[in-house]
Amino acid sequence: MDREKIKEIRPIIWDDDNNQLILIDQRKLPNKLEYFSCNTYEDVAFAIRDMVVRGAPAIGISAAYGMALAEIKNDNIEKAYNVLKNTRPTAINLFWALNRCKNAHNNNKPIIDEAKLIHKEDREICKKIGKIGEKIINDGDTILTHCNAGALATSSYGTALSVIRFAHYGGKNIRVIVDETRPRLQGAKLSAFELNYEGIPVRIITDNTAGFLMKKGLVDKVIVGADRILKDYTVFNKIGTYSLAILAKYHNIPFYVAAPLSTFDFKNSLKDIEIEERDEKEVLFIDGIRIAPEGVRAYNYAFDITPPELITGIITEKEIITLNKTSYI
Amino acid sequence: MDREKIKEIRPIIWDDDNNQLILIDQRKLPNKLEYFSCNTYEDVAFAIRDMVVRGAPAIGISAAYGMALAEIKNDNIEKAYNVLKNTRPTAINLFWALNRCKNAHNNNKPIIDEAKLIHKEDREICKKIGKIGEKIINDGDTILTHCNAGALATSSYGTALSVIRFAHYGGKNIRVIVDETRPRLQGAKLSAFELNYEGIPVRIITDNTAGFLMKKGLVDKVIVGADRILKDYTVFNKIGTYSLAILAKYHNIPFYVAAPLSTFDFKNSLKDIEIEERDEKEVLFIDGIRIAPEGVRAYNYAFDITPPELITGIITEKEIITLNKTSYI
Repeated sequence: MDREKIKEIRPIIWDDDNNQLILIDQRKLPNKLEYFSCNTYEDVAFAIRDMVVRGAPAIGISAAYGMALAEIKNDNIEKAYNVLKNTRPTAINLFWALNRCKNAHNNNKPIIDEAKLIHKEDREICKKIGKIGEKIINDGDTILTHCNAGALATSSYGTALSVIRFAHYGGKNIRVIVDETRPRLQGAKLSAFELNYEGIPVRIITDNTAGFLMKKGLVDKVIVGADRILKDYTVFNKIGTYSLAILAKYHNIPFYVAAPLSTFDFKNSLKDIEIEERDEKEVLFIDGIRIAPEGVRAYNYAFDITPPELITGIITEKEIITLNKTSYI
Repeated sequence: MDREKIKEIRPIIWDDDNNQLILIDQRKLPNKLEYFSCNTYEDVAFAIRDMVVRGAPAIGISAAYGMALAEIKNDNIEKAYNVLKNTRPTAINLFWALNRCKNAHNNNKPIIDEAKLIHKEDREICKKIGKIGEKIINDGDTILTHCNAGALATSSYGTALSVIRFAHYGGKNIRVIVDETRPRLQGAKLSAFELNYEGIPVRIITDNTAGFLMKKGLVDKVIVGADRILKDYTVFNKIGTYSLAILAKYHNIPFYVAAPLSTFDFKNSLKDIEIEERDEKEVLFIDGIRIAPEGVRAYNYAFDITPPELITGIITEKEIITLNKTSYI
């Protein structure tokens, strides 16, 4: 069986007939598969801000289509660029995609063509990440992942989950443990959904369980995605990544980051980058139900920062960049 | 103002007129303050198993009243002992309290007197833990705690939260950060409630945020409770404690455990102790709402194991046992 023929999860669809961007509404998964249609760049900005679509590459692709919609509807391109740019601050792929679209526009190339190209390229890149990365996975491995660096975070396949998928497609017998990833629960809701959909064995844990499972010898490798990578290989990713990297180091478990080269930021340094703080309600309420006492506040940092000394390697579409050898592999 | 005169939170009440154990129903907090009445030892067993009452000392006290109810109702004491013993496996205070009651019974002493004594002693012990422990806290400290080692986990005051309370009562300007503590959210629901009730500034974080806050310098100390402590000072406590201890060590932050001497287990060794695995639904659902895809499973270990090398000190009602000096204090 050609495992790649499993019906692909593709969270972003461009409808050429109606000039419409159609997104899987990721706020509704896994209980409901609903679609969210964007007819204007403002719709796209809302979808990114409210996390209808999320994941660094998927945000970039969606923003590119947002720019295309602005051009098609004769909106002010500079304004659309700024509105889309201000949706979320941490993932760099957003800015990278917006700049590609602005350059295309300035060179009199239709933005929709550039957006489609970014979209198509991303799928190929994710496949390459999977094919290059799957070499790190041994038959019988149990892999821990965090949040959702999957098909739903990209055009298809994912980054961290592409590595896992291609190991599975190649016939390796693997199991996955996924952190539920509070507050938005992308691990429990999205990664578990994707892996289960493809028949890859997966178990969900609360975010405070990873250390204990590592101690018990139940985790062979950790693979996560990234929202931004600096030139010294400092990684910005979903809150909890940094803690996981420390726990992996303590237990001498290899810790990998999988991300396209568009995630690299060669210009900025640590102090220039904003860690998004989202609405405290994401922590204080779960699915609309208040879990915390009235009047009590929360911290809700959406991302954290993992230094290169905690990272075994970074898997890109070109190569595996080895940062630290572990005695384990 | 005598801060101790703030209306105490007392989760366990014995109603002498009606021979009834009245518990705050901790499954309903913080949104509703409801009581759960136990008229038989079976009611008490249910309350412990279903976590109407939880926290190692509070489980012990409740089980003692369960034994008293068995005696009052002329039930078979041996059977009541066994039913109560099998409610939860990890916290040792349960077995300690049950044995005290059985011994009283064997010595023709009314069990209810022994239960009342255990209850009264616990309140004094918790006060002593607070008064002895508050010395480790400096004016201006921010203290991270996990789960609920508070009044609701004991007769009153708590263990870890007693240390925090007495620092606050003594006029130290402190702030608390509490892990929400999935899956049952005792941090967000119970600790935040207690601290807020007494006007101690508190913020809730998701369980994956602690490492990032430590790195940012926002945590001065970590204090947690314990469900069982072995003679080599290995600590069994709520899942996530072990990860927190590693994170504290990595950031050179003092990590304290606060617990009564009844938590110590001088007989058993690591391999003898069962880590309770609770229903996977506690992870897969939150407040009755399914968060995970159908068919996907979870691991739900209720406790983990922290080795002594990660612990700065253990605060008991007698002394602070120093295990490791940090360069920080």
